[in-house]
Amino acid sequence: MAFELTQSDLEPLLLGGAFFGSGGGGTIISARNLSKYFKKGKYYPTNKFRVVSVDEATEGETVMVAYMGAPEAIDSTKYPIGPVEAARQVQEKLAAQGRKLAYVVSPESGALGFLVAGLVAAKLGLAVIDADGAGRAVPSLPMLTYAAAEISPRPTFLVSQGGLAVELNVTPKKGTDGDAGHQQDVSTIVEQMLRPILQDQDFGEFGGLAMWVMTPKNLQKALPIRNTLSRALALGREIQKGKLKTAKAMIQYLAKHCDLQAKAISEPTTITSAKVDTTGGFDLGKITLSSKKTPIPCSIKMNHSWHGIVKKAILSYLPPTASPTS
Amino acid sequence: MAFELTQSDLEPLLLGGAFFGSGGGGTIISARNLSKYFKKGKYYPTNKFRVVSVDEATEGETVMVAYMGAPEAIDSTKYPIGPVEAARQVQEKLAAQGRKLAYVVSPESGALGFLVAGLVAAKLGLAVIDADGAGRAVPSLPMLTYAAAEISPRPTFLVSQGGLAVELNVTPKKGTDGDAGHQQDVSTIVEQMLRPILQDQDFGEFGGLAMWVMTPKNLQKALPIRNTLSRALALGREIQKGKLKTAKAMIQYLAKHCDLQAKAISEPTTITSAKVDTTGGFDLGKITLSSKKTPIPCSIKMNHSWHGIVKKAILSYLPPTASPTS
Repeated sequence: MAFELTQSDLEPLLLGGAFFGSGGGGTIISARNLSKYFKKGKYYPTNKFRVVSVDEATEGETVMVAYMGAPEAIDSTKYPIGPVEAARQVQEKLAAQGRKLAYVVSPESGALGFLVAGLVAAKLGLAVIDADGAGRAVPSLPMLTYAAAEISPRPTFLVSQGGLAVELNVTPKKGTDGDAGHQQDVSTIVEQMLRPILQDQDFGEFGGLAMWVMTPKNLQKALPIRNTLSRALALGREIQKGKLKTAKAMIQYLAKHCDLQAKAISEPTTITSAKVDTTGGFDLGKITLSSKKTPIPCSIKMNHSWHGIVKKAILSYLPPTASPTS
Repeated sequence: MAFELTQSDLEPLLLGGAFFGSGGGGTIISARNLSKYFKKGKYYPTNKFRVVSVDEATEGETVMVAYMGAPEAIDSTKYPIGPVEAARQVQEKLAAQGRKLAYVVSPESGALGFLVAGLVAAKLGLAVIDADGAGRAVPSLPMLTYAAAEISPRPTFLVSQGGLAVELNVTPKKGTDGDAGHQQDVSTIVEQMLRPILQDQDFGEFGGLAMWVMTPKNLQKALPIRNTLSRALALGREIQKGKLKTAKAMIQYLAKHCDLQAKAISEPTTITSAKVDTTGGFDLGKITLSSKKTPIPCSIKMNHSWHGIVKKAILSYLPPTASPTS
């Protein structure tokens, strides 16, 4: 069921997005900074955006849009120039072929992912799909349901915050358009392309990505995990109201409203320190938790092999002892 | 005046190309290895290729084609798969628009540059233009006359030896299509893209590049330095015949046939050692020359700031005391 979000809905969206992002999906700090500038004015033509369900998205095509780069580097940005320009490139390309871009969708659940999709929609007069490609955050593009559904990754647009736009049209080495090997090729190239975007000041530290253009029919198979944006919004509203202050309350909420069986992984703890280093396009986090009995140090690294651990650390920012199982 | 080259012409082409490459343009070792496999058979449909002057190139469009990567990494390749596939992508793209690719041209003077253009022409049924974008070798794409003439670098095709084809369509950040900033953007991205091609085994160590598609009219302004392939061939034939064994003979030849004022930069010397390290996509060379009186060590690095020095070192492989001035 379609609904509209405006400035006052953003904070609960970010709180819930951060929870379901489970350690990825961008920091709540960068998302809060971007959301602060979401006002009708010189940049945005409106102060709201529309969210529609997968079944309602029949008026045109959809593209996945996102920020890529280290969340810490994105923290100080005011407007989502890279993702907006990447989506605009797709919009223009489709228009030249008599096709219409009507929707954007987030790659994954997360504070920044949901927000960026909404801000791009507001800027370009599109709507956001109430779903994403993971139902959590993931460390690499081929892990998303768009890749699993073999949506063609041609073309892919990558735009720096400075406005340098690159269209990548990667021909599959062998096999068919959109197959697993092709998704891996595109992902590797996009991730390699991000190196200059992250490290060279000419490029501006991080980039906007638009890829996986989907017709309404494609959307049905590419988005099996649905209503994730409204799920995050609802949970965020409960957190905001202070109704989920204990592990027990969170576990009960997840079971009742999200069909998720969660369990506490430690006794109640306190965060004694939290540090982040941004290196090579990844945020490396280290968090120490202490209980009344013993200190529990917890080291996290947000890359593929360590991604499972990230959940624990991020959840410690919320009720420290609750962790959903996925 | 158009002419045809076949297997027996390749060695003089490479000798002359290496001389005019002035330290760049690929190693004669990799060029000799590729030339060895240039036979009519399973890969090549013919054992010759046609060379035409800029004024004769009126039957279709031209694209610049080249190997990119460290020469040492290219040494063991048998067939120019990357450059052929890059040119084929351009050919197909033009054909889809009712346009015809008829010619290829080397980026620069050099043993490998001239040879690769010839082999691509033979493989795809095209001809080679008797000119290049520098009249010598240069360390980066924006230094070529194609860039100076503001030929649009959209699209650019980069294909790994393993056949992974990437079409790059870089929108200028500001200004116009093909201007200096645009050439720089494309060059930076192409060079960044080469990193995975050079370093990741999935990509296969080096790549073929095709960019700067030119109509016959564009060709006139993009190629002010002409007949460089036939100049290299003629010089190579003289070297092959053993007629340019002294610095004096080379200096006289260059003055008489090439309108180049050359001078000897040292007394006669002998090469006592020559080493190459391939690092980060560049060949780092170190050569020691000895005369009867004193040893003359000479260290070279094939990057922008050091490129001037390379001339000396490469020339020491030929008559040890001759150096053309450019």
